Amino acid sequence: MRMYDIILKKRNGQELSTEEINFFIENYTKGNIPDYQASALTMAIYFQKMNKRETADLTLAMAHSGDVLDLSSIKGIKVDKHSTGGVGDTTTLVLGPMVASLGIPVAKMSGRGLGHTGGTIDKLESFKGFSVEMSEEKFVENVNKIKLVVGGQTGNLAPADKKLYALRDVTATVDNVSLIASSIMSKKIAAGADCIVLDVKVGEGAFMKNKEEAFELAEEMVEIGKKVNRTTVAIISDMDQPLGFSVGNALEVKEAIDTLNGSGPQDLYELCLTLGSHMVVLAQKAKDMKEARKMLIHAVESGKALEKLKEFVAAQGGDPSYVDNTEKFSKAEFIIPVNSDREGFVTKIHAENIGLIAMELGAGRATKDDIIDLAVGVVLNKKRGDKVTEGEPLAYVHANSMEKAEKAVKDILANYVIGSEYKENIPLIYGIVK
Amino acid sequence: MRMYDIILKKRNGQELSTEEINFFIENYTKGNIPDYQASALTMAIYFQKMNKRETADLTLAMAHSGDVLDLSSIKGIKVDKHSTGGVGDTTTLVLGPMVASLGIPVAKMSGRGLGHTGGTIDKLESFKGFSVEMSEEKFVENVNKIKLVVGGQTGNLAPADKKLYALRDVTATVDNVSLIASSIMSKKIAAGADCIVLDVKVGEGAFMKNKEEAFELAEEMVEIGKKVNRTTVAIISDMDQPLGFSVGNALEVKEAIDTLNGSGPQDLYELCLTLGSHMVVLAQKAKDMKEARKMLIHAVESGKALEKLKEFVAAQGGDPSYVDNTEKFSKAEFIIPVNSDREGFVTKIHAENIGLIAMELGAGRATKDDIIDLAVGVVLNKKRGDKVTEGEPLAYVHANSMEKAEKAVKDILANYVIGSEYKENIPLIYGIVK
Repeated sequence: MRMYDIILKKRNGQELSTEEINFFIENYTKGNIPDYQASALTMAIYFQKMNKRETADLTLAMAHSGDVLDLSSIKGIKVDKHSTGGVGDTTTLVLGPMVASLGIPVAKMSGRGLGHTGGTIDKLESFKGFSVEMSEEKFVENVNKIKLVVGGQTGNLAPADKKLYALRDVTATVDNVSLIASSIMSKKIAAGADCIVLDVKVGEGAFMKNKEEAFELAEEMVEIGKKVNRTTVAIISDMDQPLGFSVGNALEVKEAIDTLNGSGPQDLYELCLTLGSHMVVLAQKAKDMKEARKMLIHAVESGKALEKLKEFVAAQGGDPSYVDNTEKFSKAEFIIPVNSDREGFVTKIHAENIGLIAMELGAGRATKDDIIDLAVGVVLNKKRGDKVTEGEPLAYVHANSMEKAEKAVKDILANYVIGSEYKENIPLIYGIVK
Repeated sequence: MRMYDIILKKRNGQELSTEEINFFIENYTKGNIPDYQASALTMAIYFQKMNKRETADLTLAMAHSGDVLDLSSIKGIKVDKHSTGGVGDTTTLVLGPMVASLGIPVAKMSGRGLGHTGGTIDKLESFKGFSVEMSEEKFVENVNKIKLVVGGQTGNLAPADKKLYALRDVTATVDNVSLIASSIMSKKIAAGADCIVLDVKVGEGAFMKNKEEAFELAEEMVEIGKKVNRTTVAIISDMDQPLGFSVGNALEVKEAIDTLNGSGPQDLYELCLTLGSHMVVLAQKAKDMKEARKMLIHAVESGKALEKLKEFVAAQGGDPSYVDNTEKFSKAEFIIPVNSDREGFVTKIHAENIGLIAMELGAGRATKDDIIDLAVGVVLNKKRGDKVTEGEPLAYVHANSMEKAEKAVKDILANYVIGSEYKENIPLIYGIVK
């Protein structure tokens, strides 16, 4: 078998066999196939597409290119949740405790933030002492005991995906639905969960900019899940404005605590209830969505979910007293309002730019090696559809440098669109694919 | 300017600017752009194509990526001839002396053979002592004095093309008409001729397998020539069977001598007259094709062309007595007939395979570093349309190993198609683009 023939076949629009896909991934991972042949193939795939069989084969080949975690020592049905990435997306911090408090094991491998999207691990490190470093035994012990654990991604999970994604990123071959779907699903499969709930974000602040693409990606991933016997459900949710109000690490953690206290932003809470209900049903702890939703609301209202958060933080070395006293989180030196320069309705908030503004304040990383500032970020005061008067704050900048704060104020103002009326009706959840 | 954006632009079907094409070629030649980005771009070009402006820009950028020869010290209008490569194609050895004997300077840079096609330099080395190694001064002196010189390709002629072609060759992005056209024309432009006559071969033994592709390539190259002020004429000629009878180095040289003696194969002679007439007209030595043809026929019939060959061989260190006594060329030990196993008409000779059979006998190179055997090869006895009786020789194998000869006999037999009648009418010359 020769890589040249595989490229030629795909270039000519033919279907690649399972053996050919395995040959490519195995030898590319080993370094036997050079990057210039891999990039020619991914560009050919961009144009000629892959069918569902090829996509599933690619996913499995990448999932098996490194370690595949064995979670069989964790009791119960393991449900993993994955978001395609957004701005101000704090769902894991809300959802994890809610679902775990119902006795469902939530064993998450999380990442750090890059670019305009944040990462769960960075956020959790706002709790003094919190760490994701632990042995595999400790990981399993924690999830069996308290049902919730967040670990860092191990180095050798789907290394083929890691290598191929880095290549696609510099050769303009990222945006192909089969390649995106197989990239996400290969990592999820290698991470070992029984069921997967996907939150596919759509809108300006998301990877998928339009609804059709988002549904296509969702369908592709659900299909892969079926083919490999991991029941997968995908929610398509709005990311045309940031989720909730807060964008920034400690700021988002405080918002998650508020939400578990029943006083968080409505959109964040609603999305968590929807995603959570699917997780509860997949874990076979409720007979239907209605029952699952009731259970989750009860977990919040009874305070059980908040208790679970404290238990989880403590188990990973964090100081749980921060949950009751959020004043303990590190705070930014300057909090500057972004006052509206006109009256009207907020018709649009450029979500990706808000994420980038928070990044520039220090809340995120432009490159992998940047050090982040946990305290800084942006807290929105007005969201899409809200009425605003002249001089009223649209948002607040939390900064540790006055210079950066002033720039952020100007930038945020430029990324709010204020119109004379708001007629659009963008839903929070576009639909569900399962 | 970023290579990523250039790939993305072409992938999305947009036209690349002159600056973008120059940026790519300049930085790729320097090694600033990695192969994996270049191969992603060529694959995107394969799918999205390039327009005539982009193709001309790419050609010029590659032509100027290294040395551009200055032939101004050669008197007269310099006309270069280039063939896209075929089997048994000895035109240069016939055409060069014919045209030069009319006082037209023919300064050729030639290559060596690779795969199923032969190279002019290898063939000329059948003359004892012949060499293409010479200083630039000697090169110019020879062409001014005797009007005919054949040099080896200098190392730094269109290095961008050399690098890019090698990459395309292993990433399945060779067969795009713009990329092929710019590859050929960049070398011709760097080689400095005023006018270019192209022989675009079409058929099984050629790079272009069908007429439409061949005409498209011809038009593309003529268009580039126009854009850079090098008058270019392209002949589209048949390569669905080998040209002439002989395939192999010394064998082809002998056939060229026969042709200059007026006793060579009709198809080879006719093609040389056609290509040569265009060269004579472009060099402004005849007012039209008819006059040019008459002059060329006279050059052969008067013996002037053959004299020119001797003069040329001697000037480059070769023994010109070989021309009068072709017995002096090295000969193969075994000459074995390939007898037909049936009666009928030759309806097809698989040209590429005949080239490969000659290569396997030792006449050509499978890889750049192979050493060739000048004596061996195949001499056809029957060509397309010829009647053949059972036991009559279709061809003769010239070999220096009985084992190889036996294999070649079997292979040649398998590559002759004998039918009960021959009705096709494949022309020698399909057309002319200018």
